[in-house]
Amino acid sequence: MSTTNRQIILARRPRGWVEPDDFGTREGPVPDPGAGDVLVRAIYMSLDPYMRGRMDDAKSYATPFQLGAPLKARVVGEVARSRNPAFADGDLVFGMLDWADYTLVPGGGGLRAIPPGDLPLAYHLGALGMPGMTAWIGMEIGQPKPGDTVFVSAASGAVGQIAGQIGKLKGCRVAGSAGSDAKAAFVTDDLGFDAAFNYKTAGDLLAALQARCPDGIDVYFDNVGGAMLEAALDHANPFARFVECGMISQYNLSRDETPGIRNLTHINRKRITMQGFIVSDHADRMDAFMAEMTGWLESGAVKYRIDTAEGLEAAPLAFIEMLKGGNFGKQVVRIGPEP
Amino acid sequence: MSTTNRQIILARRPRGWVEPDDFGTREGPVPDPGAGDVLVRAIYMSLDPYMRGRMDDAKSYATPFQLGAPLKARVVGEVARSRNPAFADGDLVFGMLDWADYTLVPGGGGLRAIPPGDLPLAYHLGALGMPGMTAWIGMEIGQPKPGDTVFVSAASGAVGQIAGQIGKLKGCRVAGSAGSDAKAAFVTDDLGFDAAFNYKTAGDLLAALQARCPDGIDVYFDNVGGAMLEAALDHANPFARFVECGMISQYNLSRDETPGIRNLTHINRKRITMQGFIVSDHADRMDAFMAEMTGWLESGAVKYRIDTAEGLEAAPLAFIEMLKGGNFGKQVVRIGPEP
Repeated sequence: MSTTNRQIILARRPRGWVEPDDFGTREGPVPDPGAGDVLVRAIYMSLDPYMRGRMDDAKSYATPFQLGAPLKARVVGEVARSRNPAFADGDLVFGMLDWADYTLVPGGGGLRAIPPGDLPLAYHLGALGMPGMTAWIGMEIGQPKPGDTVFVSAASGAVGQIAGQIGKLKGCRVAGSAGSDAKAAFVTDDLGFDAAFNYKTAGDLLAALQARCPDGIDVYFDNVGGAMLEAALDHANPFARFVECGMISQYNLSRDETPGIRNLTHINRKRITMQGFIVSDHADRMDAFMAEMTGWLESGAVKYRIDTAEGLEAAPLAFIEMLKGGNFGKQVVRIGPEP
Repeated sequence: MSTTNRQIILARRPRGWVEPDDFGTREGPVPDPGAGDVLVRAIYMSLDPYMRGRMDDAKSYATPFQLGAPLKARVVGEVARSRNPAFADGDLVFGMLDWADYTLVPGGGGLRAIPPGDLPLAYHLGALGMPGMTAWIGMEIGQPKPGDTVFVSAASGAVGQIAGQIGKLKGCRVAGSAGSDAKAAFVTDDLGFDAAFNYKTAGDLLAALQARCPDGIDVYFDNVGGAMLEAALDHANPFARFVECGMISQYNLSRDETPGIRNLTHINRKRITMQGFIVSDHADRMDAFMAEMTGWLESGAVKYRIDTAEGLEAAPLAFIEMLKGGNFGKQVVRIGPEP
């Protein structure tokens, strides 16, 4: 076991787009667990768009990251040293840990054991983790019925991949948008979406939706907000459900910089329901989600693509790139080797 | 009975704000009912913001008004001559009739008899009509719980008056916004709202909401959209319900003219549900609504203010003024005398 622990800290709060200098690195000794504590060695770390919000000092559903302290993320790791009877050295676990090689978890609080299985370990940050459950809960909210058209933005992303595949499993026509031709091809050719397009080269977004969703949109699984939301409102069917999962196009814009959504009158005319949700409000559904998603993954009914950055030191740039759509699939960082 | 029938027709489709020259007047003989038909003499006619949408040639939930044909509105009238066994001369009825002194109703289609009672006849265009049922259905959607804060925009309007009073009956704190000091005073002093303000002189709308809704907003009954919607999103509590009844601030703006809503990320962060609805989708609830609202009005639990324009010829200007907020209470036009 290494005797040095590297941590990535929040050096300053970003203004607008995140920059490399917003991060800092701190090195210190690997901490020694006290009675009841668990020391975890990181293997894979999850990078997620919602973290952008935690870098601000603004009241939100998640508390802000502390300046000068390590950033936090969901991490899959191995128990390096346990002084807690609930965990043994070598156990595979996940929890909200530091951006670091090692995290000391007081009392083992929040750590969960990873059940044995053949699925890739990093799936516990993606399809079987928070993004997968977000898609699963969101598609419950969207109530897709067989024959409905489901449109998913950021379709090749951590959440979008799953949301669209659930739509197919529910008997819907599914279309997606993504940020490159390769991503659009991936969701149709590999994931089984019926249609997809590259929003960066599509030009008129409404025309792009009309071509891919000839019967309108019944469920919009929104990961991006902004101009795509406006186009989806234009193309929505009466009684459409807009599942408001995220608005990544807005996260780095101040209010004065955003063009705003100008066609919300459709909400009334078309009797649209827009519902925001946060997966952590639905923790009571975790076991049902894990059971169903594990089955889908093991049977091959659902596929999942992961984009792996190599090494803790790569995390800041990988995060910055992900906010710009530079990832292809669920973004994780490999911090240390699998056991 | 007069032998001349005046009709107000759509002379041209408005661009932006409605203008007097968008209307025309046509005179002709009072029509003669054929077998099964009913001729109705208008007494009160309803003017409603949703009609602005029908003046456009755009697909919406209601079919567009026809150029060169009489505009339509809900009218309370008296059967002037019936050749239909379901209606007798002198019956009081309401239905979607012409902006006119008389309307010939083929087969009596869509006419409904007004039950006898002591409530003002014009209530059947307001508290007991479409606006009242809109408020009642909308407050079902909003699910106010005792102790919640309900905020109602256009609070002294046809719908807002009722929505706010239902909030009080449900045990909520109720605040409203309106377009003059007198209207704001009316909803607190006469209708029992807890607080209200004049949005035209309030300056900072968020500060105005913070002062009137110190515990945030749990239910926003939105009649106006635009800047007030943005402020309400800022001041909403987690899990707030936004009942999207209308967006009158937007009806006369092209998409390029509207500033757009720039803070929809609150929908996600605060898990807000925004739901559009149209009262005609809920026709199966009509009897339940009529029973409950009649009881409230007869007992004095709910009050209702009507703004009456005098004479059919006053209808175009009254409609134009209403779209600018010039009315004080539910806008109706008195076309002919009560029997």
